[in-house]
Amino acid sequence: MDKYEEKTLSGETLYEGKVITLRVEEVELPDGNRAKRELIKHPGAVAVIPITAEGKLVLVEQYRKALERSLIEIPAGKIDPGEAPEITAVRELEEETGYGAKEFSYIQSFATSPGFADEVIHVYLAQGLYTIDNPAAGDEDEFIGLLEVTIEEAEEMVVTGKIFDAKTAFAVLYVKNLLAK
Amino acid sequence: MDKYEEKTLSGETLYEGKVITLRVEEVELPDGNRAKRELIKHPGAVAVIPITAEGKLVLVEQYRKALERSLIEIPAGKIDPGEAPEITAVRELEEETGYGAKEFSYIQSFATSPGFADEVIHVYLAQGLYTIDNPAAGDEDEFIGLLEVTIEEAEEMVVTGKIFDAKTAFAVLYVKNLLAK
Repeated sequence: MDKYEEKTLSGETLYEGKVITLRVEEVELPDGNRAKRELIKHPGAVAVIPITAEGKLVLVEQYRKALERSLIEIPAGKIDPGEAPEITAVRELEEETGYGAKEFSYIQSFATSPGFADEVIHVYLAQGLYTIDNPAAGDEDEFIGLLEVTIEEAEEMVVTGKIFDAKTAFAVLYVKNLLAK
Repeated sequence: MDKYEEKTLSGETLYEGKVITLRVEEVELPDGNRAKRELIKHPGAVAVIPITAEGKLVLVEQYRKALERSLIEIPAGKIDPGEAPEITAVRELEEETGYGAKEFSYIQSFATSPGFADEVIHVYLAQGLYTIDNPAAGDEDEFIGLLEVTIEEAEEMVVTGKIFDAKTAFAVLYVKNLLAK
């Protein structure tokens, strides 16, 4: 029993797209009052923190239409229907960077925009990278550039705003801690 | 000029809510092909990392309807129309925790879900906390619990999944680095 629970009184699906679904629900608040909630359903995603043998972080650059700009991010992608997140991790790393990894380790999962969306992202660390000869192609509507940066360069990119993505800012701090150990 | 740019060919606003707007756009890809983009517009948000004199992190617990569960997060909230983010930071800290802060410092901004949403969150550090006698009330549909935890406790909460929120996972690593200096 969750003392803050908001019970759904009624709800309506207003849009079902290829990626997201929009629902509006009327809820009963803990004090008995009512409120409206605008909710985005998303299949969930996986992000991979790829570290090369030289300790460099592999990043990808791609256009993000929602923000009308390119972003530099760790490789990431949506979970396909029925796909296990660790399979998504291997697939997205290969498709977006051409790398395989000898070692994948699960780090953690978190909600990205809990105020309005149910998107959860599962974060993996990929070490022991090797180049795949004929890597699987990614989505045909994805155009991606590759960067490999030292952790100091990545930190500088966070400070200057060149890295402007929450999961990637988390990844930079995570790798910094990891390498400091 | 952005070499990955996706030009909008046509678009339609399918929903305009209190918090979010849904648009679907047809875009021209860098190779001349076309794709459909489902986009959520959001006013943007502010998050505050509040550190007490004892070096504890102040967290809030609230129900997140999108995820159908309570989440433990750093204080955060939407930017009101025309509001400067540093004003939102002061307001949300007061409303959600009852604390004021002698020192607010801007840390950075980042996109939370760039794959489908334009939400940007501006993150501030709040130090020199003091209790406000009659703090402003928050939104009437928000029910919030307060926690104060050491950085070691917060790290453990990330590892065990009790902290399940991207900006808060970032905040825990940020504070850990800060206190290690």
